[in-house]
Amino acid sequence: MRAVDIIIRKRDGEELSREEIEFFIDGYTRGEIPDYQASAWAMAVMLRGMNERETTDLTMAMAHSGEMLDLTGVVPIAVDKHSTGGVGDKTTLVVEPIVAACGLPVGKMSGRGLGFSGGTLDKMESIPGYRTNLSREEFIAQLRKEGLVLTGQSGDLAPADGKLYALRDVTGTVPSIPLIASSIMSKKIAGGAQAIVLDVKIGLGAFMADLGEGRKLAHLMVAIGALSGRKVIALLSDMNQPLGNAVGNALELREALDTLRGNGPEDFREHCLVAASYMLVIGRKAANLESARTMAEAALESSRALASFRRLVQAQGGDVRYVDEPDRLPAAPLIETVTAPRAGYLLGINAREVGETSVELGAGRARKEDSIDHAVGIVIHHKVGDFVEGGEDLFTIHANNAAKLAAAKERLLAAHQWSTEPAPALPLFYDVIGS
Amino acid sequence: MRAVDIIIRKRDGEELSREEIEFFIDGYTRGEIPDYQASAWAMAVMLRGMNERETTDLTMAMAHSGEMLDLTGVVPIAVDKHSTGGVGDKTTLVVEPIVAACGLPVGKMSGRGLGFSGGTLDKMESIPGYRTNLSREEFIAQLRKEGLVLTGQSGDLAPADGKLYALRDVTGTVPSIPLIASSIMSKKIAGGAQAIVLDVKIGLGAFMADLGEGRKLAHLMVAIGALSGRKVIALLSDMNQPLGNAVGNALELREALDTLRGNGPEDFREHCLVAASYMLVIGRKAANLESARTMAEAALESSRALASFRRLVQAQGGDVRYVDEPDRLPAAPLIETVTAPRAGYLLGINAREVGETSVELGAGRARKEDSIDHAVGIVIHHKVGDFVEGGEDLFTIHANNAAKLAAAKERLLAAHQWSTEPAPALPLFYDVIGS
Repeated sequence: MRAVDIIIRKRDGEELSREEIEFFIDGYTRGEIPDYQASAWAMAVMLRGMNERETTDLTMAMAHSGEMLDLTGVVPIAVDKHSTGGVGDKTTLVVEPIVAACGLPVGKMSGRGLGFSGGTLDKMESIPGYRTNLSREEFIAQLRKEGLVLTGQSGDLAPADGKLYALRDVTGTVPSIPLIASSIMSKKIAGGAQAIVLDVKIGLGAFMADLGEGRKLAHLMVAIGALSGRKVIALLSDMNQPLGNAVGNALELREALDTLRGNGPEDFREHCLVAASYMLVIGRKAANLESARTMAEAALESSRALASFRRLVQAQGGDVRYVDEPDRLPAAPLIETVTAPRAGYLLGINAREVGETSVELGAGRARKEDSIDHAVGIVIHHKVGDFVEGGEDLFTIHANNAAKLAAAKERLLAAHQWSTEPAPALPLFYDVIGS
Repeated sequence: MRAVDIIIRKRDGEELSREEIEFFIDGYTRGEIPDYQASAWAMAVMLRGMNERETTDLTMAMAHSGEMLDLTGVVPIAVDKHSTGGVGDKTTLVVEPIVAACGLPVGKMSGRGLGFSGGTLDKMESIPGYRTNLSREEFIAQLRKEGLVLTGQSGDLAPADGKLYALRDVTGTVPSIPLIASSIMSKKIAGGAQAIVLDVKIGLGAFMADLGEGRKLAHLMVAIGALSGRKVIALLSDMNQPLGNAVGNALELREALDTLRGNGPEDFREHCLVAASYMLVIGRKAANLESARTMAEAALESSRALASFRRLVQAQGGDVRYVDEPDRLPAAPLIETVTAPRAGYLLGINAREVGETSVELGAGRARKEDSIDHAVGIVIHHKVGDFVEGGEDLFTIHANNAAKLAAAKERLLAAHQWSTEPAPALPLFYDVIGS
């Protein structure tokens, strides 16, 4: 078997066999197939596509390219959740504690933010001492003992995906649905997941702006689940406006803590309850969505979810005083609330603009090696569809620099679109696939 | 400008600007754009295509990636000929002397054989002493003095093409019409050509088997000529059966000498006269094809073309005794003539099979670094359409090893297809584009 012949077959729109896909991924992982062949192959896949079987074989080949975490015997059923990334998406911080509080153990490996999209690890690291680099043994021990883990992804999981993703990033081969689906699913499967809730974000502030494309991605990942013996449910959720109100690491953590205390923005709370309910169903803790919802609400209202979160922080070396007294969290030196320049209905709050402004304030990374400021960020005070009076609070900027604050103010004002006529609220979810 | 954005634009089927193409080729030539970006780009070009303007800009960018030979002042008009390669294609060895004998100076840089397709330099090197590595200064001096040069391509001409071609070979991006057209044309233009006759071979023994694809390639190269101010005529010629009778280096040289002496196979002689006539027309030595043909025939019949060839050999250090007495040329130790196993009409003589058998006998290279045996090869005694009696001579094998001879015999017998009913002869040419 030769790499060039596999490239040629995909270039000509043919279906690759499992053996060919395994040969290619294995050779690439071991450095025997060079980057220049992998990038030509990725472009051929991008333009010719892959069917469900090929994508499943690619997923499994990448999952098996490194260590495979086996959670059998550690938990009754290994559940996981994955979001394709968005602006203000602090869902994991609330969903995981809810689910754990309902007695469903959950160990999750998260990522860092890049570009306009934030990362769960960065948010958790607002708490001094919180460790995100647990070893495999620590991960398993904590999952067994506490029923709850939230750490970084081990470099040993799906190394082929890491290598291929870095290459795709510089060769114009990122937005391929089979390549995205196999990238997401390979990491989850290598991490031992048997049941997965996927949150596919759609809109201006998401990786994918088009609902039709998101739907294809969701269907493909559900199919990969079916073909590989994993239960997968994919939520299609809106990401045209930020999720909740806060964007920025400590600000989002604080909003998550508010939500765990029974407060928090309504849209965010609802999003978390829905995601948690699906996890409880696929994790076989609840017989159906209705009873799952009741369990999830009870966990939140009884403060058991908050207690779970506190246990998580403690188990991973974080200072729990920051959970008990969120005012201790890093605060920005400059805080300014901007009022509405006019009265009207909010037609749009461009999530990508808000996300990019947050990066410019220092909350995110333009490049992987950039450092971040946990304190800075943005809080919006209204959602799309709201009627706002002129002079009412519109958004608050948390900055570490006056010039950045001024620039953010301009950019955020421009990110709010107005209408004199009533504007519809945005839906939270567009669809659920695989349920 | 970033390489990845140029890849993305082509991936999405957009038209690249001249600036983008120049940026990409320039960066790639200088090593600033890595192979993995160039291969992804080549795959995008292969699957999305390029229009005539883009292909012309690519051609010119590659032509300008190294030294540009300027033949203004050396010859009144710099003419060149290029064949896309075939089996038994020793055309240059006869066409160039004819044209030079008609008073049209011609300096040509040729290549070596690779795979089933032979190379002009290998054929010329059957003559001891013949130099194929003339310097730029030697090339110009000889073209000025003798009006005739036949040497290897300088590595300084179109280095971007050399680099890109090597990459395409291992990334499944060879059979792209815009990439093939720009590769051919960039070398010719860098070599100073102002008027070019292209011989696009079509059939089993050619790079391109499909007439429609060959026609597209021919039209595109004629268009590149028009857009870059070069006169280009493309012949579409048959390569389903070998051209002439001889395949193998010294054997083909001998057939060329026979032809220059007024003998030689009819199909080969006719092919040479047609190609030479078009060169005389685009080189403005003849007012039209008819008078060009008369000139070419006269050069051949008067032995002036043979005298030209002898002068060429002498000028480049070759031993002219081998021209005068072709029996001196390297001869294989084993020569066996195989007779027809049956009577019938020849329906096909698979040129690719003949070419590959010749490589197995040692006449060509499977890989670039292989060495060759100038003496070995094949002579066929009939052409497609001929009626052959059982027991009549069918082909002669010239080998250096009994096992190879036996294998060649089997393979060549299988390469001859028979019919009990009359079979049509193959045409020499399918079309002429750009005349």
